[in-house]
Amino acid sequence: MRHLRTMGDLRNEEIFELIEEAISFQQGKQWTPEKQTFVANLFYESSTRTKCSFEVAERKLGLQVLPFEVGTSSVNKGESLYDTAKTLQSLGVNALVIRHPSEAYFEQLHTIDAVIINGGDGCGHHPTQSLLDLMTIYQEFGTFHGLKVTIIGDIRHSRVARSNAEVLERLGTEVKFVAPPEWKDKSFHDDAYITMEEAIETSDVVMLLRIQHERHLAKENVVDEYHQQYGLTLEREKRMKSTSIIMHPAPINRGVEIATELVECERSRIFKQMENGLYMRMAVLKRALTKIEGGSKHDNITKEWEMA
Amino acid sequence: MRHLRTMGDLRNEEIFELIEEAISFQQGKQWTPEKQTFVANLFYESSTRTKCSFEVAERKLGLQVLPFEVGTSSVNKGESLYDTAKTLQSLGVNALVIRHPSEAYFEQLHTIDAVIINGGDGCGHHPTQSLLDLMTIYQEFGTFHGLKVTIIGDIRHSRVARSNAEVLERLGTEVKFVAPPEWKDKSFHDDAYITMEEAIETSDVVMLLRIQHERHLAKENVVDEYHQQYGLTLEREKRMKSTSIIMHPAPINRGVEIATELVECERSRIFKQMENGLYMRMAVLKRALTKIEGGSKHDNITKEWEMA
Amino acid sequence: MRHLRTMGDLRNEEIFELIEEAISFQQGKQWTPEKQTFVANLFYESSTRTKCSFEVAERKLGLQVLPFEVGTSSVNKGESLYDTAKTLQSLGVNALVIRHPSEAYFEQLHTIDAVIINGGDGCGHHPTQSLLDLMTIYQEFGTFHGLKVTIIGDIRHSRVARSNAEVLERLGTEVKFVAPPEWKDKSFHDDAYITMEEAIETSDVVMLLRIQHERHLAKENVVDEYHQQYGLTLEREKRMKSTSIIMHPAPINRGVEIATELVECERSRIFKQMENGLYMRMAVLKRALTKIEGGSKHDNITKEWEMA
Repeated sequence: MRHLRTMGDLRNEEIFELIEEAISFQQGKQWTPEKQTFVANLFYESSTRTKCSFEVAERKLGLQVLPFEVGTSSVNKGESLYDTAKTLQSLGVNALVIRHPSEAYFEQLHTIDAVIINGGDGCGHHPTQSLLDLMTIYQEFGTFHGLKVTIIGDIRHSRVARSNAEVLERLGTEVKFVAPPEWKDKSFHDDAYITMEEAIETSDVVMLLRIQHERHLAKENVVDEYHQQYGLTLEREKRMKSTSIIMHPAPINRGVEIATELVECERSRIFKQMENGLYMRMAVLKRALTKIEGGSKHDNITKEWEMA
Repeated sequence: MRHLRTMGDLRNEEIFELIEEAISFQQGKQWTPEKQTFVANLFYESSTRTKCSFEVAERKLGLQVLPFEVGTSSVNKGESLYDTAKTLQSLGVNALVIRHPSEAYFEQLHTIDAVIINGGDGCGHHPTQSLLDLMTIYQEFGTFHGLKVTIIGDIRHSRVARSNAEVLERLGTEVKFVAPPEWKDKSFHDDAYITMEEAIETSDVVMLLRIQHERHLAKENVVDEYHQQYGLTLEREKRMKSTSIIMHPAPINRGVEIATELVECERSRIFKQMENGLYMRMAVLKRALTKIEGGSKHDNITKEWEMA
Repeated sequence: MRHLRTMGDLRNEEIFELIEEAISFQQGKQWTPEKQTFVANLFYESSTRTKCSFEVAERKLGLQVLPFEVGTSSVNKGESLYDTAKTLQSLGVNALVIRHPSEAYFEQLHTIDAVIINGGDGCGHHPTQSLLDLMTIYQEFGTFHGLKVTIIGDIRHSRVARSNAEVLERLGTEVKFVAPPEWKDKSFHDDAYITMEEAIETSDVVMLLRIQHERHLAKENVVDEYHQQYGLTLEREKRMKSTSIIMHPAPINRGVEIATELVECERSRIFKQMENGLYMRMAVLKRALTKIEGGSKHDNITKEWEMA
């Protein structure tokens, strides 16, 4: 049983194995654990994509999914995350997929035996999103080496930005950012920030982030201004390199981060990312529920990481 | 794959086929799609009957039902119905059962590949309710031809009234209405409205509607007054034709639309309607998930529509 | 089909049979009903343990579990418990597990054919909690006869206290209480109340109750005071008999009813109770869904009740 809390839990080799496995599932591979396995999805924050794709992934793997709605559980009697996790473990739950507003919530769960898969922790990490993004990029370019990915938007509060930047650099990709001054993450070097126009014209992947703080969207002129300054407008899309792609973790604020007409344009991989998320989560669940074995079973795909 | 958005999606012949199929399911017929099939029930409005009977129907057909609670999804981050539907489709969901407060919401989903089954759209339509009502009437009388159905209550805001009136007339049934002046739907001719007493004494089916607007029920004298003027009282029930039946889509406001003692009386088909709803939804799902074939496979039951 | 509304529904013999059955399930016994069986869990109050353990139990028995969220059902259009239960029955649901804030809510359901399992009724009863408590005690001591169990806390509002006291006395256990004056249940004799210190030093089972009324916990000094006067402190635990155990139905208010460090101490059976709850609920569901047969099939375990 192997947790997935942050991308730091995965060596490069394992990342390529997961991508390989996810592609196998996409191509129709079947796998199911030997004995009846229970999983619970504890989502302390709203979610459609992550929660539903874990659900579908779990069903496709033949797992028993225990419904758990935070709002009608003892959480609203003040029960702690630890006690909730320990309770579910006592009921025979083997794996917990958790989204929680507290950064690094999983540190308080280190004595829990059930395997933990992080579905997002506060402004911290979101490893399955990173993995599905990596899978999407890998399927597009066949490599991470020598690519340029620019992440645009609220870098400071985004768990996607941090997870992705870290791992992409590890894999040999150049990562840049575009952000309004108040949303810059100071832990990245000044040189990492480039202009919107440079991003558009030089990136292989234009990765847009959702504006998380809904309050910012209340004032209409702020929305217009953001779209003009940091949004992917129809005009900007025309200046992108012919081979470059658009990504966004969604949900999308249409007309803010991206013009509505571009959401499903030819170079958009936004719904492809969602599809990939399903297969990547199947791979992550399989890894989590499989006993650790001696060697890795990767083959041709692994040459990449050996070079990286 | 065939959508069911309004009763207009169904030719008379198909209606009889669905009734026939539903009766087969009621008699124990088994059917399950050849490959694993995912369905999601998106209920943007509260529901017990419709939602639960779709759920049971889906399970009985061996479908994988993806749990989706609007309140804990990205809908509360402002994600649109279209983006939610497109997301679920990207995750491999084959069919979407949707209830939504916007009339004709399905028009914005015409590029979605997943099959859409309408579980109620605003004040618009509710086709599976119509179908289960038709099934109940057909099982009772063996025909629609020459019957008189009176629909009583808030005609103006009722998706049941509109759907049922349209299709029943198509099938040769005389449809009349009783409504307080403020709840008359002006799109029906004046002649269609009759008095409560005429309705009670001459109808084969007395179809009561739920008072939807809970605010009207706040004032107690309004409730009493409604029950006296438009409710099915103990006294009125005694004046009904010996063969006529009582229907109500539920949930019931006991003591308002109908006296509590009559809810389960001999001529009430209210809980029978719910039971039929299960089998009709199995038939609708089977139709939705089955490839369109050459000819229809109806037999003896079809003579009726040929006459109609 | 046999309801379980209160512990009064069970003869002593049946209690031992259920414990025996639950232990068999714990040891890996498999059982599943012959035909497809639908169950719905209607929880009108928040729950993690009871709801989730019924869910896991139902899945392990191969039942079809119909999702039902009160908050998004017609309950919020004012539909009564009776009409909701009757509706689910019309949809083919065979068993209803219900938690409801009204004491003895099940009395209004006596004409419902679906089997009713009480998951807690107001301040009334909570029979599956009693049964899992009995199982835990029986596994520990091999008998109920001659034991002393002290229940500590809000006796007055606790459905656990009442259910447990009744049945334990029936089975030959001495039951005592410790409670702040305002939380004493006057229906028990004055002699039943003992001091905290006597409880700690003489009980085989120290059974702590959750403080249900969250408002009491708002004032911080009240919490400290309660913990000092009625809580299981580190100091008190040291004075317990070497063989005695700690129980709590959970969720726990850590640092109030019990010191955090003691929740998982060696003599705590708190998470063991949760685990037992799963197997006991499997036994209760099996009993509920099995036709009543001639004789009982208990064997060695039954000698106990013959003596009791």
